[in-house]
Amino acid sequence: MFSIDHIGVAVKSLAAAKGVYEKLGLPVSSEEVVEAEQVRVVMVPLGESRLELLEPTSENSVIGKFIAKHGEGLHHVSVRVPKLAAVVERLKKDGVRLVSSEIKVGAGGHRYVFIHPSSAGGVLLELVEAVG
Amino acid sequence: MFSIDHIGVAVKSLAAAKGVYEKLGLPVSSEEVVEAEQVRVVMVPLGESRLELLEPTSENSVIGKFIAKHGEGLHHVSVRVPKLAAVVERLKKDGVRLVSSEIKVGAGGHRYVFIHPSSAGGVLLELVEAVG
Repeated sequence: MFSIDHIGVAVKSLAAAKGVYEKLGLPVSSEEVVEAEQVRVVMVPLGESRLELLEPTSENSVIGKFIAKHGEGLHHVSVRVPKLAAVVERLKKDGVRLVSSEIKVGAGGHRYVFIHPSSAGGVLLELVEAVG
Repeated sequence: MFSIDHIGVAVKSLAAAKGVYEKLGLPVSSEEVVEAEQVRVVMVPLGESRLELLEPTSENSVIGKFIAKHGEGLHHVSVRVPKLAAVVERLKKDGVRLVSSEIKVGAGGHRYVFIHPSSAGGVLLELVEAVG
């Protein structure tokens, strides 16, 4: 079953960005550092999905560079996809541009790949293997 | 129950932008014109949410101006909120900046308000009344 896993938001300050979600009465996670991505993260659960607020810990990180170029805001959308390996093979054959051609394994063991914005109407589109 | 209603994506060409979702095997709606917003829309259902691909029919529309300034890409996130009127009153008291101070009624009768990106980490955040 396809569904939205999360929406990644690049922010300068978690403390400032999470305020509006707290005011909405949403349960906002504590801050967590993801060393590999050089970000501090706050999760905001929203039904079957969540927002991931991403504050760079380095100007040279992907998120740091994004903010320098575009400012704060929506960074990527992550979609749960069943049978990811087969889907990725089909996308490659169809000429869809991927950020990296191999499926990667992230923190917690989730498997993912990014479709380049040039193949998705300007959207950085992450596909993650749907679990269960 | 809070959840993601939809993600709005500003695109130059629906025909080009919807291709990747068709290749993923997702059911993509037929094109529909929303005169009030000066856009042509294609919906891509994703679990309890959906993507809305928005192609401007006029350069002077909100989406047309967005593309001229920022290029194609993620435009807004819409979140379902129970008891919207009470939530909006609380947000106003808490100093959250709204795009318009009154709740609006859109096509199909849905009730909505937009939070300004300056109050939401750079995200144009729509709140829609949760139904049922």
